[in-house]
Amino acid sequence: MATRKTPSRQEAGATERTIGDWQKDPIEAWEEQRRKPWQVYVDAVLGFRNHWYPAFFSHELAEADVSGPAGEPVEQTKVVTLLGERILFRRIDGNVYGVQDWCLHRGVAFSLKPECYTKETVTCWYHGFTYDMRDGVLNAVITDPGCPLIGKLRLRSYPVEERKGMVFVFVGDGEPTPLELDVPPGFLDEDLAVAPDGWAREVACNWRPAAENGFDPAHAYIHRNSKLVERFKVPTVLGDTDISKTRGMDVVQRKNGPCGIRLLRGTATPVWETTVGDVTVAARYRPGEEGVLEGMVPEVSIWMPGVLKVDPFPTPRMVHFEWYVPVDENTHRYVIAWGQRVESEDERLEFEREIRETWLEIVPNEFNNDDVFAREAMAEFYAGEDGWYRERLFGPDIVITQWRQLASRTGRGIQKRGLQ
Amino acid sequence: MATRKTPSRQEAGATERTIGDWQKDPIEAWEEQRRKPWQVYVDAVLGFRNHWYPAFFSHELAEADVSGPAGEPVEQTKVVTLLGERILFRRIDGNVYGVQDWCLHRGVAFSLKPECYTKETVTCWYHGFTYDMRDGVLNAVITDPGCPLIGKLRLRSYPVEERKGMVFVFVGDGEPTPLELDVPPGFLDEDLAVAPDGWAREVACNWRPAAENGFDPAHAYIHRNSKLVERFKVPTVLGDTDISKTRGMDVVQRKNGPCGIRLLRGTATPVWETTVGDVTVAARYRPGEEGVLEGMVPEVSIWMPGVLKVDPFPTPRMVHFEWYVPVDENTHRYVIAWGQRVESEDERLEFEREIRETWLEIVPNEFNNDDVFAREAMAEFYAGEDGWYRERLFGPDIVITQWRQLASRTGRGIQKRGLQ
Amino acid sequence: MATRKTPSRQEAGATERTIGDWQKDPIEAWEEQRRKPWQVYVDAVLGFRNHWYPAFFSHELAEADVSGPAGEPVEQTKVVTLLGERILFRRIDGNVYGVQDWCLHRGVAFSLKPECYTKETVTCWYHGFTYDMRDGVLNAVITDPGCPLIGKLRLRSYPVEERKGMVFVFVGDGEPTPLELDVPPGFLDEDLAVAPDGWAREVACNWRPAAENGFDPAHAYIHRNSKLVERFKVPTVLGDTDISKTRGMDVVQRKNGPCGIRLLRGTATPVWETTVGDVTVAARYRPGEEGVLEGMVPEVSIWMPGVLKVDPFPTPRMVHFEWYVPVDENTHRYVIAWGQRVESEDERLEFEREIRETWLEIVPNEFNNDDVFAREAMAEFYAGEDGWYRERLFGPDIVITQWRQLASRTGRGIQKRGLQ
Repeated sequence: MATRKTPSRQEAGATERTIGDWQKDPIEAWEEQRRKPWQVYVDAVLGFRNHWYPAFFSHELAEADVSGPAGEPVEQTKVVTLLGERILFRRIDGNVYGVQDWCLHRGVAFSLKPECYTKETVTCWYHGFTYDMRDGVLNAVITDPGCPLIGKLRLRSYPVEERKGMVFVFVGDGEPTPLELDVPPGFLDEDLAVAPDGWAREVACNWRPAAENGFDPAHAYIHRNSKLVERFKVPTVLGDTDISKTRGMDVVQRKNGPCGIRLLRGTATPVWETTVGDVTVAARYRPGEEGVLEGMVPEVSIWMPGVLKVDPFPTPRMVHFEWYVPVDENTHRYVIAWGQRVESEDERLEFEREIRETWLEIVPNEFNNDDVFAREAMAEFYAGEDGWYRERLFGPDIVITQWRQLASRTGRGIQKRGLQ
Repeated sequence: MATRKTPSRQEAGATERTIGDWQKDPIEAWEEQRRKPWQVYVDAVLGFRNHWYPAFFSHELAEADVSGPAGEPVEQTKVVTLLGERILFRRIDGNVYGVQDWCLHRGVAFSLKPECYTKETVTCWYHGFTYDMRDGVLNAVITDPGCPLIGKLRLRSYPVEERKGMVFVFVGDGEPTPLELDVPPGFLDEDLAVAPDGWAREVACNWRPAAENGFDPAHAYIHRNSKLVERFKVPTVLGDTDISKTRGMDVVQRKNGPCGIRLLRGTATPVWETTVGDVTVAARYRPGEEGVLEGMVPEVSIWMPGVLKVDPFPTPRMVHFEWYVPVDENTHRYVIAWGQRVESEDERLEFEREIRETWLEIVPNEFNNDDVFAREAMAEFYAGEDGWYRERLFGPDIVITQWRQLASRTGRGIQKRGLQ
Repeated sequence: MATRKTPSRQEAGATERTIGDWQKDPIEAWEEQRRKPWQVYVDAVLGFRNHWYPAFFSHELAEADVSGPAGEPVEQTKVVTLLGERILFRRIDGNVYGVQDWCLHRGVAFSLKPECYTKETVTCWYHGFTYDMRDGVLNAVITDPGCPLIGKLRLRSYPVEERKGMVFVFVGDGEPTPLELDVPPGFLDEDLAVAPDGWAREVACNWRPAAENGFDPAHAYIHRNSKLVERFKVPTVLGDTDISKTRGMDVVQRKNGPCGIRLLRGTATPVWETTVGDVTVAARYRPGEEGVLEGMVPEVSIWMPGVLKVDPFPTPRMVHFEWYVPVDENTHRYVIAWGQRVESEDERLEFEREIRETWLEIVPNEFNNDDVFAREAMAEFYAGEDGWYRERLFGPDIVITQWRQLASRTGRGIQKRGLQ
């Protein structure tokens, strides 16, 4: 993680050099920037601690298998890094358990060669330190059966909840908060079917520019030529404007429910067309035009600790969810899941089939690929922290600065390296 | 950029350990080194600011093209990094313009997907910020047409001069100095034809060891077996010696012309032969021997901000120019161009043909490849700044220390990271 | 090399968080850790200076060849990096000499293009600085024959001893200590034949975790399924336990012989079988069982500056030696040699043949490959120095902490970067 230093007058001046009449005393301008009310967010490079994050989809981890007599490596484990912490998962009698993926003794990763003599344990392949996957307690040492550390050492173990076909993990300390606070409203509703086949990949960009891209009303511009937009003639604005704290958006902060920000498309001013010099730049498809998809005016909202809801999308009946899960300082896991209100089991099965056979391929590759491009393009500028102070935001970015402030107020702790 | 620290007595001693009878108190020796009069040059890791550098050859950038209605990326742009600053170029009505290659809004590179709705503008593919390439001013924002930043924000734009088929850029602040001060004497002369086909590549070495290699009289030793030397039987000394401030060189420092250093081969003592033990080491070809190329006693000179002139080379009529353009701390762009005095258009065309068909291939690959090898070999030693204090220079290196001092006196500013 | 900082209370607490009832005040616990009596060893990231290390096997370097009249590169040189110092070797009239592999003038490596006009010299390919390989003295400068530095500059030269078919180098200052102090007892004995064909490779792990792995009684666990163990039915314990300073081990510290630690297998308690839950984990082969190899209860010992002796291994008559030679902070050279007591020349030849045709292939690839795996698995945890303070050692590790203390007491100096 890079450190910020107060710049010399010359350096500070340099960042202001291009600003024309707005020129100020550079040191004063710098310090004003530093007083911005989202400093906590800027510091949350590795994410916010004490929140729930999705680790993987349920179907990716089957019931635990066990090693043969020679300690053969098992296959049914899953390793995921969340907020810089590498976690090993096993499914025991149907329940998923997660512990830190390194042995307390000499720090090697269990996952390099996971040995599990019993369903409930993982044994370190190096010296035979054997831990209970359910609570992390050291309960045998193969190379020193009478070891006094048995029952005394404990791996960090992670609270897990499996809901809607996804495995959520609480990365934090003490009693976990309810999962309900860390997913978008409606996600856990009984009548919302969530398809078991979601999509995930790592993207070479910190989680914060990623979250801001997804929630940015003006980033619609990069999607006006997305393949999916063209394939279904989805009306896509160039941008939304005339947004303020009291217009076009709604900040949701409360004790007993998810905290987030909703964009209210109805009240902002959509931009369908503008000019550059004497050239007209226009949206490809507009509502009401012949052949254009009807019913697609999605409400976009973002929720702590970094999950987007787009309702509806990609069809007028579906809801699109996407998470920006911190992996390390320079990487986030981009996780997408889709839901739909269903009234019967048949309807649910039909929806799941549709996701599996159609949307799982189309949405990430013909729409969100453009977002991945944009996030990776921002990575360098923001990686050294410098971008946070050099960026020049414009009107529609009010929703982003409100998000940064909300996150700064409601984040339950800043993740630091070395806490695992 | 590595930082230098005053070493402990033990560490300082270590650097002196091999020096035999010259042994001094190590801390005292270290501090004496630090008082060397070329400290400014040592600090100019990223190059000297407020100078002109060649960016590319004219034929590499055609007249600007424009995007179609969907904002398709254009092809006629050029991106070059000079002194750590990434610059985007377009040619508008014949003139080349350059601006910083990153959007002020969120820092992404225009060049990842350059959109140009008009000939004079570049539009950021992300949010549609649109700038005039000619002065950098923000003149439209596609996603927020009424944006109050329009007309107020400005990209850094770079003074450009196109001369002799090359595009030169002033990397600095305020009014540029005349280009004439930053090219070798004669380069801009009317009767000097410069071939449009030059050669350039990036080399994994800082620009300073590169410049010193080119200008080093003793580096002739690496060329005695160069293919070009063998192919044309070019007489190549082993080295030149007996050089001092008043013999064999001429320091040129003035207000109204290029500053640099000339090697005066006539007054130094050339080494054609010497012995190692009882083995004789000799130049491959000497002037006057049968079959050896006549007329090749080139004058070598180096000029601020890092450009070499070898006159004549590679033939008795041509002049060889080479630039060591800082790209980043560990890379320079090695740029070569050739000139020849011509008296007619026919002569000029014949010269250009000869360069294109013969020398463009031969000179870099059969001669300067040996220089590339030497520069990359020095990179590690000098990269941590340490080499600047551990090197043990010898007699002929007086020309190098004079160059370092001249550069320290006449460089117009030290380039720093983050000034863009 | 990473630096350690005293952690904040919160960070220090984090490393203790998993320790259950052992919880202490975290800052106090941290400082106690820092008072551990092997701090010198922790600091010896690049190895211990003023010791002998094996550089290569004798058969790898033939008698010196010389360049032709054009200074063609020679072939008979060897370059090896020891403790961060790159050393160039030549064999002159049968004797091996080593000097620093970079020219004092401008720091380039001779080995990039070694020129040797005479058997005894190396000439820098760049400016013709010519040094005597035997003492490092500059004795000619081809590009400046009268250079006053001749006879005054000297390369660092390295004491070399060639014994038992291996080339040992003293990396240190002043008069070297006797080689006898830095090899395992018996290695230099006249009646011990050492096979000329040894094995070596670089492993991506610091030398200290490597040394500890080789000497760790409990690491036997990783070998219970090694191919070699299975092929020859070698009895391999799960681990040895009930070891203390006065039981199962012997610390050897003296002025006139090698310093090291012996494991005394007879007095420790071997673990042949234990349970995990209701599953029995057992050694694959036990002594006395049908078909199991007899006579394989090797004594394992480790000696300064990092060499292991396993007697006998891999057969009941052979002795296995292995070195963990520091290359840089993150790499060691893993060097293996085998010896056997012989009573005649025929016996010696037969032994050498057996090594060449059988064991040279089998031992590294069917046994020590498991050690390489374990070392590389520890690298990340220990690389940032952090592992040294976060590790949780257990009973059998007393031999490792005794080794660390012995090394801290008997190491002749901590190697630092930049001493070359």
